[in-house]
Amino acid sequence: MTLGEFDLIERFFSRPSRRGDVLLGVGDDAALLSVPAGQVLVAATDTLVEGRHFLTGAPARSVGHQVLAVNLSDLAAMGADPAWALLSLSMPTAEEGWLQGFADGLYALAERFEVALVGGDTVRGPLVATIELLGFVEPELALRRSGARPGDRLYVSGWPGEAAAGLDALRQGLASPDGDDPLVRRYLFAEPRIELGRALRGRASAAMDVSDGLLGDLAKLCVASRVGAKLRLEALPVSGRLSAQHGRAACEQYVLHGGDDYELLFTVPATEAERFERELRAVCPVTHIGEITAGGGIECLRNGASVAIGAAGYDHFA
Amino acid sequence: MTLGEFDLIERFFSRPSRRGDVLLGVGDDAALLSVPAGQVLVAATDTLVEGRHFLTGAPARSVGHQVLAVNLSDLAAMGADPAWALLSLSMPTAEEGWLQGFADGLYALAERFEVALVGGDTVRGPLVATIELLGFVEPELALRRSGARPGDRLYVSGWPGEAAAGLDALRQGLASPDGDDPLVRRYLFAEPRIELGRALRGRASAAMDVSDGLLGDLAKLCVASRVGAKLRLEALPVSGRLSAQHGRAACEQYVLHGGDDYELLFTVPATEAERFERELRAVCPVTHIGEITAGGGIECLRNGASVAIGAAGYDHFA
Repeated sequence: MTLGEFDLIERFFSRPSRRGDVLLGVGDDAALLSVPAGQVLVAATDTLVEGRHFLTGAPARSVGHQVLAVNLSDLAAMGADPAWALLSLSMPTAEEGWLQGFADGLYALAERFEVALVGGDTVRGPLVATIELLGFVEPELALRRSGARPGDRLYVSGWPGEAAAGLDALRQGLASPDGDDPLVRRYLFAEPRIELGRALRGRASAAMDVSDGLLGDLAKLCVASRVGAKLRLEALPVSGRLSAQHGRAACEQYVLHGGDDYELLFTVPATEAERFERELRAVCPVTHIGEITAGGGIECLRNGASVAIGAAGYDHFA
Repeated sequence: MTLGEFDLIERFFSRPSRRGDVLLGVGDDAALLSVPAGQVLVAATDTLVEGRHFLTGAPARSVGHQVLAVNLSDLAAMGADPAWALLSLSMPTAEEGWLQGFADGLYALAERFEVALVGGDTVRGPLVATIELLGFVEPELALRRSGARPGDRLYVSGWPGEAAAGLDALRQGLASPDGDDPLVRRYLFAEPRIELGRALRGRASAAMDVSDGLLGDLAKLCVASRVGAKLRLEALPVSGRLSAQHGRAACEQYVLHGGDDYELLFTVPATEAERFERELRAVCPVTHIGEITAGGGIECLRNGASVAIGAAGYDHFA
């Protein structure tokens, strides 16, 4: 069954929101939104292409979750409060079952973080989903990539690498998207670190989300801050779920290069780090993995000895 | 020649902007933007898919123009001041020449309307371009589709139908995209009615842009306002450029159903209409084409006699 565009928006993407700051939502030429006084707007966009950012035939519910989660992760990395989303969805045909699953995955995450879907565009074409996510933050508290200073401690949240291992299991046919493999669940329904971003604002000196791999993204943070870093490989967090399925070397590769977990990489001035670390652990696991240095470049250390590891992140056009 | 993603953003989509309200633009996880006090945010998004919204092989400069213009038109229809854009661009390969043309078309229009490109995402995939456009307006002056009242006069701006005729000429191989056919130029580089939108704010009772055809979009305006309309076919504006190439019946079809001109359809209370009409004509041509009625539905009149005309707009999934 296929549906017309106007029925489609009405049926799948017009669920009411409880936000009082949406003056006008889906249904006019544009949305009207009220940014709270004293806050600045935070705007991000990310696109998922079938066969490239999600597997062909991936569960629709997971695609709906992921396209919002990847944007929520960008707002988490700024310390922002997410508020409003616009959806652009290109599809070859309007299949009711797929749309229902996609909308369910999208709204389940949107409702948890109080995000209102306020507009968008549905067109016929290849399966490509784009979310533009808007939120706000007090300008002086916003997290940037550029604030890291020599001597700052380097942290990563949670368990990076799990989602990449889950994706590999799906690609290799070792697990089903409908099964209960915890690494696959983590890939399909990764949790953006909004609460951590809120806890970091005004306190972390720099932050970004790990979207192209910890090592490659650390290089970008260092370039933006004009600093270097020492990374202690033995300090990297490896989850029990990951080490139960993979040997030590593979775990390290996943942690260093995996990018679909939506973990945050951040730096904290050393003088404030210990107290802050204890507070953060009430929000989510965080691990002290290295230090910011004055020299450019990243030095990877294993038990104090320098080791060479390729620093390339994921480059969509390489 | 192909380029990496990071070079690509740096090389083509990082031109400086003179806007003072961009606290943080391209290069971090999200942009930080300052909405002026007393204004509300206006947000729209539109997507163009190769082979569907623009012809395969269309000039890159035109595609860059169109993807911004279609969004500017949405903001014009709200009476908003455009300010900031995010670009999501999916491409099979990163071709330098195409990117240069696309960026030139996008920035030429952006600079004219003082829009800053503040972020985005470039991914490998089918050729699909999405712009999310943000701007602002005083909330009590924003134009909506829902405010038309019985007795209001119905207007359309400029010369609807020209772009659709230009597109047909291209499709039929009767004109070249690089030639100087005025209808083709109008299709490839249509002008969004930002200045008209500004002039209408606080004065038009309802407005929307003509994106799916005048007749189909009038039906949507009537539904949103819970009114009907009488449309006088002999009053429809037919440009000399259009009538030079097409007979009377074809011209009427183009005017009623063409949708790529980015003209505005709007209503004005009858008591204020004559004075306001004179003022508007200093901004751009506007034509009084009918009246809003209390009954539902649209009645088309030719010299006072009711005639039946299909009211379907362009439905992407019909």
